[in-house]
Amino acid sequence: MRNLYKLSIFLLLTATQPGFGQNGIVVFQSDFGLKDGAVSAMKGVALGVSSELKLFDLTHEIPAYNIWEAAYRLYQTAPYYPAGTVFVSVCDPGVGTERKSVVLQTKSGHYFVTPDNGTLTLIADRLGIGAVRQIDETTNRLRNSDESYTFHGRDVYAYTAARLASRTITFEQVGPTLPNEVMRLPYQKAEVIGATIKGNIPTLDPQYGNIWSNIPRSLFQQLAVKPGGTVRVQVFHDKKKVYDKRVRLVNTFGEAPLGTDVAYFNSLLNFSLAVNQGNFSQKYKIQSGADWQLQVSQ
Amino acid sequence: MRNLYKLSIFLLLTATQPGFGQNGIVVFQSDFGLKDGAVSAMKGVALGVSSELKLFDLTHEIPAYNIWEAAYRLYQTAPYYPAGTVFVSVCDPGVGTERKSVVLQTKSGHYFVTPDNGTLTLIADRLGIGAVRQIDETTNRLRNSDESYTFHGRDVYAYTAARLASRTITFEQVGPTLPNEVMRLPYQKAEVIGATIKGNIPTLDPQYGNIWSNIPRSLFQQLAVKPGGTVRVQVFHDKKKVYDKRVRLVNTFGEAPLGTDVAYFNSLLNFSLAVNQGNFSQKYKIQSGADWQLQVSQ
Amino acid sequence: MRNLYKLSIFLLLTATQPGFGQNGIVVFQSDFGLKDGAVSAMKGVALGVSSELKLFDLTHEIPAYNIWEAAYRLYQTAPYYPAGTVFVSVCDPGVGTERKSVVLQTKSGHYFVTPDNGTLTLIADRLGIGAVRQIDETTNRLRNSDESYTFHGRDVYAYTAARLASRTITFEQVGPTLPNEVMRLPYQKAEVIGATIKGNIPTLDPQYGNIWSNIPRSLFQQLAVKPGGTVRVQVFHDKKKVYDKRVRLVNTFGEAPLGTDVAYFNSLLNFSLAVNQGNFSQKYKIQSGADWQLQVSQ
Repeated sequence: MRNLYKLSIFLLLTATQPGFGQNGIVVFQSDFGLKDGAVSAMKGVALGVSSELKLFDLTHEIPAYNIWEAAYRLYQTAPYYPAGTVFVSVCDPGVGTERKSVVLQTKSGHYFVTPDNGTLTLIADRLGIGAVRQIDETTNRLRNSDESYTFHGRDVYAYTAARLASRTITFEQVGPTLPNEVMRLPYQKAEVIGATIKGNIPTLDPQYGNIWSNIPRSLFQQLAVKPGGTVRVQVFHDKKKVYDKRVRLVNTFGEAPLGTDVAYFNSLLNFSLAVNQGNFSQKYKIQSGADWQLQVSQ
Repeated sequence: MRNLYKLSIFLLLTATQPGFGQNGIVVFQSDFGLKDGAVSAMKGVALGVSSELKLFDLTHEIPAYNIWEAAYRLYQTAPYYPAGTVFVSVCDPGVGTERKSVVLQTKSGHYFVTPDNGTLTLIADRLGIGAVRQIDETTNRLRNSDESYTFHGRDVYAYTAARLASRTITFEQVGPTLPNEVMRLPYQKAEVIGATIKGNIPTLDPQYGNIWSNIPRSLFQQLAVKPGGTVRVQVFHDKKKVYDKRVRLVNTFGEAPLGTDVAYFNSLLNFSLAVNQGNFSQKYKIQSGADWQLQVSQ
Repeated sequence: MRNLYKLSIFLLLTATQPGFGQNGIVVFQSDFGLKDGAVSAMKGVALGVSSELKLFDLTHEIPAYNIWEAAYRLYQTAPYYPAGTVFVSVCDPGVGTERKSVVLQTKSGHYFVTPDNGTLTLIADRLGIGAVRQIDETTNRLRNSDESYTFHGRDVYAYTAARLASRTITFEQVGPTLPNEVMRLPYQKAEVIGATIKGNIPTLDPQYGNIWSNIPRSLFQQLAVKPGGTVRVQVFHDKKKVYDKRVRLVNTFGEAPLGTDVAYFNSLLNFSLAVNQGNFSQKYKIQSGADWQLQVSQ
């Protein structure tokens, strides 16, 4: 009787945790868009490895070849997923060249399957590098796919991620270990210079056209400006000034009249700019990227 | 033996209904778009509450700040989901102002987690108000998120919806009960005036540019026009007439020549207008919203 | 004791395969777009049949009424899903006319639920016709939906697919068997004519603007051109020549300078054209469809 009880408990555990290593969750990101079947083919391959996997999307609207934005989206999103989640990021202008195909295991226990081309720049800083392994394509590549040179996203990255997430392979079986480092893209970090805080514009809020800087609230607080007060904001494209105004800092858009420029802290608690119920980026023709700079002073 | 049989049955039920209250399904809607990581971050937070949740999307292409359209999409879609489904709708121009964060339980047993800013106008009419509770953010808010003022969608709405859908909390534990009412947006209801039926254009079919009215087939039938017959249709923007034609009523587009204006009943059985394999909205510059009116007569 | 052991095994199997026929996976494709609630309503109906179904998307950005592209996306993607997967494709300009609603079972064990209007042209060639059944709408139609003439996607196709995928019905219970044939769209097949290979352009890679032909690598190899060598490529719109150049064949884009025209084999191993990190389609105003032709010679 007791054995049967144990068996039933075992069956219960087996049924609710059906053989998964990490947590069975795979999150896909790419610059493929959703108009053709590329993203869906990646998911089909993953379900062929295990139909029990739980598949989600980060975004597939990364601008073509824009590694910086791929890096930023992982930074913005991945920490909100539970440890054990496996991310696949395919923004790969150098497909077929010498860049390595890797899996990064962060100190937080998240996994990132991607070409090592700069995509890991920001997430490596944020979550910490636990270990890096190069994908061994002699085992971790969809069978019968070796004639194709161009769809690593499906044949290598989605396939390897699915094998890892479903515990078909261990992290060690991904392939040989590499030094604890990833390729980094250069970018202007936030810094205080005299009475000015300097930063860059890593991204826009694309739906509303808000400007998001990389200046964290903790750094901004050195200016001793409180909500309701104003700051001088200058924006430069390369070194040409394109915006110079005093802007009110608000806790919520509701505090300011419609159509007013406001400064606020976004959901990542970084200094940001908006037109209340308008589009800052369009109004002032301001974009994001490494060549855009921001200065904030009292 | 009998006890073991009962145990096994219990295990079976437990395994197929793994601890869920409602039905474990969460459906997300927002005006965030899919270009950045905002929607994905909401899903990550939900999976952090329970990795067994089943997450789906209504749409994330609600035009920015367009509460009316958010209300309409819930009305159009939610009744097709099984009772027990939890919807999250985040279209929130007044984030941080006095609007309440609520969960509506409809008489049909569906749940809606949203700012109470008019988003619930149409679904409350359609499914009936069972109970309304205000979200108690002292318990139902992602930990360590209290410094942020701007991403309630992730930190409060997605988090609370996931806790409710996974039975981590009961509906009662959402927070204090409110009066059985929600905030309503004003809109022109369909009505018969003499020999004319008057209504508004709540939405377009955005893919094909068809015009969808709020005039139900049951009301239209007072005109005693049958498929194959014609009706006079007038469209007004505010009070200016922008369209006035006789249009043939069809059961299927296949009955009319290509390029012809036709009237039909859409999938909600409401009176609608199309150009067969064309775009009515573009051709006649007709949009949707509270300021667009429609008159149909024999 | 032995009986209980058997019972427990039965429970385990039941719990991990909770009543599913095929594999419980349904993949949706349409020309509905994602701006309104149509796709979500289809999924709601499917979850109403069984909340255990696993629902995925192919694409919902098929251009309106473009049956050819719907056919191509199935061809490109479906083979990567495991056997037993049920696909729903709704691109249905003739909704309500005489086209039949069918389920195709391919020789590979995949299922396709769709109007038989040409959508199955390419997948029938690729995976082979196992059997075809007409959907019996007296049983396989969402209850209370019979007044609507226009949303077969939700009321018939999604509903039938969910019933089939969840083993609520067998394939036989879909409806009466039809001859082993589907409606075919005419298209120019790839062929060798003298020293020239002729084909058409079934699709573009929409994100990058690459041109994908229907000329397979195996046929191309009759030209005896190896990677690094060049070929003459001519493109015709109807019979008017719009492109005529010698292009280098590469294994990977990294082998060619930025901005160069290159020929390569895409992920389906078909002959394709790109501008390295540019947009071939925009640069040369070349589109896809049955009226576009391609000639390749030494």
